[in-house]
Formats: sequence, structure tokens, C-alpha cells
Amino acid sequence: ESDPYCATLGIDLRELGAGSATTALTVTDDLLNFHGTPHGGALYSLADAAFAAASNSHGDPAVALETNVSYLAAVDVGATVLATATETHRTRRTAEYEVVLTTETDGERVATFRGRVYRP
Amino acid sequence: ESDPYCATLGIDLRELGAGSATTALTVTDDLLNFHGTPHGGALYSLADAAFAAASNSHGDPAVALETNVSYLAAVDVGATVLATATETHRTRRTAEYEVVLTTETDGERVATFRGRVYRP
Amino acid sequence: ESDPYCATLGIDLRELGAGSATTALTVTDDLLNFHGTPHGGALYSLADAAFAAASNSHGDPAVALETNVSYLAAVDVGATVLATATETHRTRRTAEYEVVLTTETDGERVATFRGRVYRP
Amino acid sequence: ESDPYCATLGIDLRELGAGSATTALTVTDDLLNFHGTPHGGALYSLADAAFAAASNSHGDPAVALETNVSYLAAVDVGATVLATATETHRTRRTAEYEVVLTTETDGERVATFRGRVYRP
Repeated sequence: ESDPYCATLGIDLRELGAGSATTALTVTDDLLNFHGTPHGGALYSLADAAFAAASNSHGDPAVALETNVSYLAAVDVGATVLATATETHRTRRTAEYEVVLTTETDGERVATFRGRVYRP
Repeated sequence: ESDPYCATLGIDLRELGAGSATTALTVTDDLLNFHGTPHGGALYSLADAAFAAASNSHGDPAVALETNVSYLAAVDVGATVLATATETHRTRRTAEYEVVLTTETDGERVATFRGRVYRP
Repeated sequence: ESDPYCATLGIDLRELGAGSATTALTVTDDLLNFHGTPHGGALYSLADAAFAAASNSHGDPAVALETNVSYLAAVDVGATVLATATETHRTRRTAEYEVVLTTETDGERVATFRGRVYRP
Repeated sequence: ESDPYCATLGIDLRELGAGSATTALTVTDDLLNFHGTPHGGALYSLADAAFAAASNSHGDPAVALETNVSYLAAVDVGATVLATATETHRTRRTAEYEVVLTTETDGERVATFRGRVYRP
């Protein structure tokens, strides 16, 4: 497994294209916080994995500079969440990706993420 | 363990006060990404754990609305990173927290996080 | 003029729908900073005006909680920039809007903005 | 006046140091939105002016990449708001600034801003 962190959490890479990627995570008990809901860090990690895959898809390594997340809806235990990353801008030095998180069964948006990378 | 996600990743709660919290994480091999550096999701999760502890410290449950992160410096495997959350504003309905991530040994800032919560 | 600030800067409302809005601004000399390029605040204000129009389009007043912007490309003096706001999520209490800024003549993306509102 | 945009809005530079700056703006009628409160773009522009002054204080031109704002409290017409920018991290290529907005008379925090620049 080339990405130990994703393996630790159970994040799978579903699709990978030039500047795009989709990752998936099923919410299990060991991803819950003290409220009994999925930890924000778990959803973030899912989004970040799609962002990293998409931003590194062109060959040159990309380093994350800035990210932000809006948490929109709660997710139930057992649900599978998909994160779909799209490249919205790219120059030689920086690039921007939008990642939308939705539940797999009904397509409800649960979070929106945006990230910016730098290519050294 | 009341927070299974933090237990999964190895995030410890070091300090907890009224509106403040410090969490710690030592970077192990299973937190690395495909570049061989700590996954952004691991550092985010550390920050988010401090944010959640601080924002829930007043008794009423707090729900995360928005977060953002600036990644500033790379972290080596084996290093311990501290996340210190401070309450910078609070009204009856919303509150804002700043979380600064530093390496434990030399205090270098590696990331800055800000989060906003809503109390239903 | 019901929005004095927009009148001060020269921001026009081009379109307004349920949860959507488009605003426009032509970059004039009095919007420049000390680099001789449009001030970030001018582009932000254009985006924020579309965000405010879209988020208040349902009747109930909406209060901005959080916004973020990625600056992607420089804009020349004389260019007209369009900001198009789209509602990406809405519950009874909060809503999220994405605003994309493009040049009118060639449609190049110059900035991406996301905002979250609360309805008291 | 070297910064026409700040002159247009009435933003003054109060202090400028190495990596730091303070700007001030008094809320006048022409800065109001359709709610009759100061436009978010006016407060943002005040913060952005402090950010720009601080980030360009070292001599090399700095280009804004990403910014974010939390709006915390309403501001009355007639109030003077101060924006204080502090450099929280700097490498050869990028730097991070935090800007805190407070009312001049009672020091209440009304917004928090963070920005990241790139030096080409």
C-alpha cells in the first residue's frame, strides 16, 4: 500500500484522472468522536486524499499550502462517503482543487473542501 | 476511550481548560502519505481534536461549521506535534477557535488552523 | 441606490435568482493598490456582493459567518470581472454559496470564493 | 496617495513595521450594504490593506494567494475599526499573516482574517 495513512483509515481511491480523483470511506465505529458522530478529521482526510491524488496526477510533486472545509450535514455510521476532486485552476507554480463530499447512496452533499498546492 | 478516532490515530489530549485544549501526536509510519511525509489529514485531525475539545469544554455541544488550515513547514517522522487551541470569540450561538501546531522539541510552527462552531 | 457600498465601488447587480446572483465590476484606476494592480479588497467586494444578493434572495435576512478566497490570476486595468454566486447547500439555519470570478471577455477564472451564512 | 483603493474607501495606514501593520477605517454611510450595516467587503478591504502593507514590508513584492475571514460581531455606523496584521510565519517563498479587527473605542474583536502570500 503506497499510502499508509489512507490504509489506516480505510480510505480507498476509486478513480484517478488528469487533475481529478474520487476517494471513498465507509464510516465505521473507530472513526467516531465523543459525540458518536464521524470525526471531522475523518471527513477531512477523505477530502484531502482526493485532493492529494488529483494534485499529484500530473507527475510533478505538489505540496499543500492551504485548505478549507464547510461541514454541511451529519453522516450516519455505516454510510459510505465519496470525495470528488476537480481541478479548477492550474498554472506552472500553483493549482486549485475543489472537493465535494457526498453520501454514496443518495448523493447528499455533506461537506465542501477547497485546496491550493504549490509545485516547487 | 471516549474518542475512538483519536485512539485510532494516536492523538492524546494533554490539557483541557475552559475554551482551551492541547493535543499531541507523534508522527509514525502509518501516518505517512505516498510522499513519505505526514498526511495533511493527520495534522488536521490533531488540530481538529484540540478544536473539538476546546469548543465542547463549556458543556453545551458544539458543531463544527467551518475550518481552514495553512500548512507552513514539513514535519519529520518521529517528531511529536502539539496543537494548542485558544478561544478567540464566543457568543451564545457561535464561537471561534485558533489552533497553532508546533513541534514539541523546538516549538517551530508547522500549521495554523481556525475553526467556527455553532451551538444548536 | 439600496447598496451604497456597491455604488461607491461601481459594482453592478447583473442577475438575481432564487439562491443565485451575478455582479460585475470594471477595474478602474481608483481600485488599484500600490502595486498598480486591482486591490484584493475590490475583487473580494465584488464576490461578496454576489454572495450577499444570492443569500438574501429567499426573503429572510442572512448574516455572513465565514468566507474564503483563492486568488488565481491577475486582472488588467479596464477589464470587467463577473462574480457568479451559486447556492450549494441550504438548511433552515445556514447556507453555503460558491462564487466564481471570471473576466467577461475571455471567461478566465481569476478567483474562487466560498461563503457561509446564518439565518437568525 | 500611493494606494488609490484605500483612498477611495477612507482606509488609513496607522503603523508599519517589519512584518506588521495597522490600518484604520471609520464606518461611514457610503460603506453600508442593503441591511444598513457595514458591507463585508469594507471590513475585508481594511484587513487586506493591513495584510498587504505587512507582507510587502520586507522589500520584495508579495502576491496574495489565499485569504479567509470570520465575521464575529456587527459594527455600528460611526465606529472606527482597527486591523492589526502580524507575521506568523515566513520562508523565502511564502508567508502567513494574521489580522485581527477590533473596534477602536472598546477593543472588541469584530473579525479575524488570515492570509498567505507568495514571493515570485
